[in-house]
Amino acid sequence: MAVHSVTKRFGILTAGGDCPGLNAAIRGVCRAAYDRYGMEIVGIANGFRGLIYEDTKELKPEDFSGILTRGGTILGSSREKPFGAADKDEVAHEKVSAIKETYSKLKLDCLVVLGGNGTNTTGYKLYREGLNVIGLPKTIDNDIFGTDRTFGFDSALLIGTEAIDRLHSTAQSHSRVIVIELMGHKAGWLSLYAGVAGGGDVILLPEIPYDIKSIARHLEKRAKSGKTFSIVVVAEGAMSIKEAEMDKKDRKKYRLDNGPSAAYRVAREIQESTGMETRATVLGYVQRGGIPSASDRVLATSFGTAAAELLANGKYGRMVALTGTDINSVDLSVPEGKVKNVPTDHYMIDTAKAVGTCVGD
Amino acid sequence: MAVHSVTKRFGILTAGGDCPGLNAAIRGVCRAAYDRYGMEIVGIANGFRGLIYEDTKELKPEDFSGILTRGGTILGSSREKPFGAADKDEVAHEKVSAIKETYSKLKLDCLVVLGGNGTNTTGYKLYREGLNVIGLPKTIDNDIFGTDRTFGFDSALLIGTEAIDRLHSTAQSHSRVIVIELMGHKAGWLSLYAGVAGGGDVILLPEIPYDIKSIARHLEKRAKSGKTFSIVVVAEGAMSIKEAEMDKKDRKKYRLDNGPSAAYRVAREIQESTGMETRATVLGYVQRGGIPSASDRVLATSFGTAAAELLANGKYGRMVALTGTDINSVDLSVPEGKVKNVPTDHYMIDTAKAVGTCVGD
Amino acid sequence: MAVHSVTKRFGILTAGGDCPGLNAAIRGVCRAAYDRYGMEIVGIANGFRGLIYEDTKELKPEDFSGILTRGGTILGSSREKPFGAADKDEVAHEKVSAIKETYSKLKLDCLVVLGGNGTNTTGYKLYREGLNVIGLPKTIDNDIFGTDRTFGFDSALLIGTEAIDRLHSTAQSHSRVIVIELMGHKAGWLSLYAGVAGGGDVILLPEIPYDIKSIARHLEKRAKSGKTFSIVVVAEGAMSIKEAEMDKKDRKKYRLDNGPSAAYRVAREIQESTGMETRATVLGYVQRGGIPSASDRVLATSFGTAAAELLANGKYGRMVALTGTDINSVDLSVPEGKVKNVPTDHYMIDTAKAVGTCVGD
Amino acid sequence: MAVHSVTKRFGILTAGGDCPGLNAAIRGVCRAAYDRYGMEIVGIANGFRGLIYEDTKELKPEDFSGILTRGGTILGSSREKPFGAADKDEVAHEKVSAIKETYSKLKLDCLVVLGGNGTNTTGYKLYREGLNVIGLPKTIDNDIFGTDRTFGFDSALLIGTEAIDRLHSTAQSHSRVIVIELMGHKAGWLSLYAGVAGGGDVILLPEIPYDIKSIARHLEKRAKSGKTFSIVVVAEGAMSIKEAEMDKKDRKKYRLDNGPSAAYRVAREIQESTGMETRATVLGYVQRGGIPSASDRVLATSFGTAAAELLANGKYGRMVALTGTDINSVDLSVPEGKVKNVPTDHYMIDTAKAVGTCVGD
Repeated sequence: MAVHSVTKRFGILTAGGDCPGLNAAIRGVCRAAYDRYGMEIVGIANGFRGLIYEDTKELKPEDFSGILTRGGTILGSSREKPFGAADKDEVAHEKVSAIKETYSKLKLDCLVVLGGNGTNTTGYKLYREGLNVIGLPKTIDNDIFGTDRTFGFDSALLIGTEAIDRLHSTAQSHSRVIVIELMGHKAGWLSLYAGVAGGGDVILLPEIPYDIKSIARHLEKRAKSGKTFSIVVVAEGAMSIKEAEMDKKDRKKYRLDNGPSAAYRVAREIQESTGMETRATVLGYVQRGGIPSASDRVLATSFGTAAAELLANGKYGRMVALTGTDINSVDLSVPEGKVKNVPTDHYMIDTAKAVGTCVGD
Repeated sequence: MAVHSVTKRFGILTAGGDCPGLNAAIRGVCRAAYDRYGMEIVGIANGFRGLIYEDTKELKPEDFSGILTRGGTILGSSREKPFGAADKDEVAHEKVSAIKETYSKLKLDCLVVLGGNGTNTTGYKLYREGLNVIGLPKTIDNDIFGTDRTFGFDSALLIGTEAIDRLHSTAQSHSRVIVIELMGHKAGWLSLYAGVAGGGDVILLPEIPYDIKSIARHLEKRAKSGKTFSIVVVAEGAMSIKEAEMDKKDRKKYRLDNGPSAAYRVAREIQESTGMETRATVLGYVQRGGIPSASDRVLATSFGTAAAELLANGKYGRMVALTGTDINSVDLSVPEGKVKNVPTDHYMIDTAKAVGTCVGD
Repeated sequence: MAVHSVTKRFGILTAGGDCPGLNAAIRGVCRAAYDRYGMEIVGIANGFRGLIYEDTKELKPEDFSGILTRGGTILGSSREKPFGAADKDEVAHEKVSAIKETYSKLKLDCLVVLGGNGTNTTGYKLYREGLNVIGLPKTIDNDIFGTDRTFGFDSALLIGTEAIDRLHSTAQSHSRVIVIELMGHKAGWLSLYAGVAGGGDVILLPEIPYDIKSIARHLEKRAKSGKTFSIVVVAEGAMSIKEAEMDKKDRKKYRLDNGPSAAYRVAREIQESTGMETRATVLGYVQRGGIPSASDRVLATSFGTAAAELLANGKYGRMVALTGTDINSVDLSVPEGKVKNVPTDHYMIDTAKAVGTCVGD
Repeated sequence: MAVHSVTKRFGILTAGGDCPGLNAAIRGVCRAAYDRYGMEIVGIANGFRGLIYEDTKELKPEDFSGILTRGGTILGSSREKPFGAADKDEVAHEKVSAIKETYSKLKLDCLVVLGGNGTNTTGYKLYREGLNVIGLPKTIDNDIFGTDRTFGFDSALLIGTEAIDRLHSTAQSHSRVIVIELMGHKAGWLSLYAGVAGGGDVILLPEIPYDIKSIARHLEKRAKSGKTFSIVVVAEGAMSIKEAEMDKKDRKKYRLDNGPSAAYRVAREIQESTGMETRATVLGYVQRGGIPSASDRVLATSFGTAAAELLANGKYGRMVALTGTDINSVDLSVPEGKVKNVPTDHYMIDTAKAVGTCVGD
């Protein structure tokens, strides 16, 4: 444990989409920083917006007590990206200046940011601008480089799997194909894992463009063996081979014409290809809110206390991370501007195929 | 308990949408009929379709053992309505004849039908055609006359409420209005109860056409008092005053033009009226499948054993029912062709209003 | 809705054991009383103790906002019974005087008490002493006369049933008899309903002294039919015929000698009578805490708003109640000093027997 | 993927205590072996007992279909340890001979054993005796060397955490200390993780003998800061420093005299040391049965398919394992005769302390 002589003072914020475990992580950072190291804590409202518009509040134990099991974030969140689309435009310049000013004015030693790829990337950019920043990886998508797991993923996995369980009985009773869409624009971790956990018959990921003919063959083979129902688990960003070959503009138009949700597009293609009665369900926001799972609380708490440790030791420009069975940290540049996709040779894809699931190809 | 000298033999079927508790009810009927009264049981596949096409199977204890907690129905279901749209058309005549033939051929003393308004109505029509029929009221909508409660409702209520709980944290963290649509084309019981259980800020029912201006005022008042988020619980069949005044054809067109789901239409109206960021979620099929709640298992089991009792006593043309704290039966004509709506003076509407919820008007 | 000209002011307290739905009920009373009727509300800490020792606090909307889904009670509770064992002893006299003094000092128009038989009985005694009192029936035991259902029961039923579900798989995998004890000293509602919901093979209630020979015969019959496992659901207050015939003192001694928990005594008797490997589990406090079920939130909320309505109309000396599908109120004397047991001819006992469960006799 | 020319034939058994995910793992092994590699599968009943007494059955797809979500094990289990206490005694010799005979008679190419430390150790011993054996690590205790995680642990963690959540509200409402005992005779993983996930104020593990004075100080400090309730999470095998210093015989006697369960002993000590009202709950078998969590289903399924892969490749004498983010295998000797305890310098212990939890010392 580190020794430190001067009281440190840091700001903490949560940015990006809601994610189970945020409050558990906030509590972890704050309890360790306050009780163990006697630091001062400034809560920043609504992500980076609170830094830009100076919306902050000193946090005391009563603020971060009793929040371990609560969904959401006591700090509020927003999708504000201060660096904007391009780093150099004028608005971005003003926002970043405002952030730096607030940071100085609040006399912060460090900024702790909890978020996904975007948030940690912003954090890294601020670090390069001279601020001390520590990142915590949170997202239900589990798509951040540098850590084996993000908190939020396990809770979303539980919710998605429970939904698949419920749909199973309906699909079976009514001899139907049911398509369920789970979150995951770019990375298919959630659909892959929930699909395996729920015994999905087809799993479609953004990483593996699907061939509707393969899917149809698979469903027809099941039907022939007497299984007249099927569950198809589809990631938000799943696309057919045809879509994958389109350029961005054409794909956008295609989706506008053929239904905004992957589940509906896939359901229609299945019904047209097989003649089987097919229904679509989009689980939506339900996946990202509410009480965190036990595993997410544990992970979020240990990420939080590890961040406090980095703080105490003055190790800035780092993101806390799970590596195997250890909590570590990586350079905050690691996740920058990237998305950790499911490798097409990942063992879980082979697991899915080995139990008879069609993974789209 | 009734004494009976000749072994009775009955058919059992489940019809209409999936509903938690069907297997519990089947088990209740069959255990009591088999163990207590030594009856013979014929399972009929996929609702009335199994009677029309003679798809049946003798049921033995191993068939109805261990199914209490399972979702779906071991008998399969379908939406087949043998009497069709009009009672007298030719196809209907053939189907009804086929049903009567199968009934005779199987040497049944009675037919036990588990279903909603449509199924019990069909059951009653078959009773008038000379078949012995006993009905069991099942539906997540709770909209059957003659019984205080149907099984399936409590499970759907739990699922809907859990979804609202999860959305709450996201709405709050992001300062948003979230609209969630629950099932209920004609009757709003599920949305009303889940809305009260989940602390919805607005609840919209088919029974009470909504005034978007009242809703906007309500949400703005909340915002002024510092509550920058809100949850709006919407039944599938909710409609605005404007829609309510349209004739059926116009309303259909209006919905095609403005989005097929009530949630999306309401979300757009709220965003337009208030400028607040609003999102919609349609919970869908997840509400009607899976493991039944404890209360639904208890209700379904007691309905099932009560049906066996009616059978043993030769009381046909009845539907089992919950009345207060008793299990009874009512004439099978009671639910015929009707839907039990939420009375506009129901105490639960007043309860919702008393805790500050806007119920659309 | 009542009209009233002067601002009313009432105290509210929760007494007795923890029970899911208390906060939902508090919120229901307070929201309706504050928003609809503009009343002033005094929160009383830790049941009647807070009245005796004047531990109170004015409640404002921020105090009862956001508590609908939370377990426990924001007011705290205690098992303080001011009237003591005998109404006339000195301590009791002092306590009751203190309560009356606090009531006057706080200038209360009424006292709203949330609790079980004991609490409502105390409430009635205070009413007879001249205080205005309104009662709300809460208990996981569902054993209060005057209301068809108490809030807390449905949540406990869910928890108990889920535990039975989990034990089932273990019992089956290991060919064992597993005895699970649920709460219920005097009334067996919870064990009866959870036993039916969980498919218990034996259900033992305080109301029906059990004959170990009947139980053994039942389990042996199951074993002979190939079912080498069984689940026995036992209420806390279940007793054998032998125990039932003892006087109170002898019974107490017998229990001290043979194990304090019914589950352990029953497990030993089964193992001795049948030679089957038998294990006992006592579910304990887990049954009475945590997030209330959807049904309990609905019931608690409507009880709460109904209490506010009684308050507004000056209808004191009443307990709110569920009767069939209506919310009503009964004279506060109705539950006094009694326990609503399961009638031995209750249909749910027959339901249990009809599906093959041994109910002890 | 391996090529193989002759149809392989293997036996599969589950041994030891019930554990969520067993059926998911069986399904994983069998689906991959049957569908992908066309192997023949012999299901062995009730662990090693089925091998000794030749209680087996050919498994076909209908046997392992639809079991993914079910608790328990379709094969049955037992605690039979064929090598007995000492490897060389006569009974053991006979049992092992019987096992080898059955193995030959069934013409097995391999034996797949699913179990904890004992089962995998037995598997390894049989492997040294000349049988081909592949092991799968299952246990809710997570205490098997060679794998980062065992399936069953996550489900037990969820159940334990949910119980703690429920107790929290009761502890708080009644200003009490509640002691909850979770499983874990030798290893404290479950109590440590559930304790952190549930926000336990004290966590007692077998690995860290506790000092009741430290605990009392901790609880009194909490009480002084206004927190008049506390949750104490205790592993089954937790012991005081005093107990730790006893020899085995004395400890056994001490426990007989002071209560069989750690929770009761600890509760008494706390009440005596602090005067605070303290209650104990032993969660018991509920922790090890029922529907597996999503994460456990995923892990069990991938362990299962990996075992089929080892089988196909003739890699015997291995146990499948999770290492970081990969599925691997280790030598079957790795877990032999050992228990993987929580290292006293494990980061999760520091995490617990950092958020203010007393870990007994």
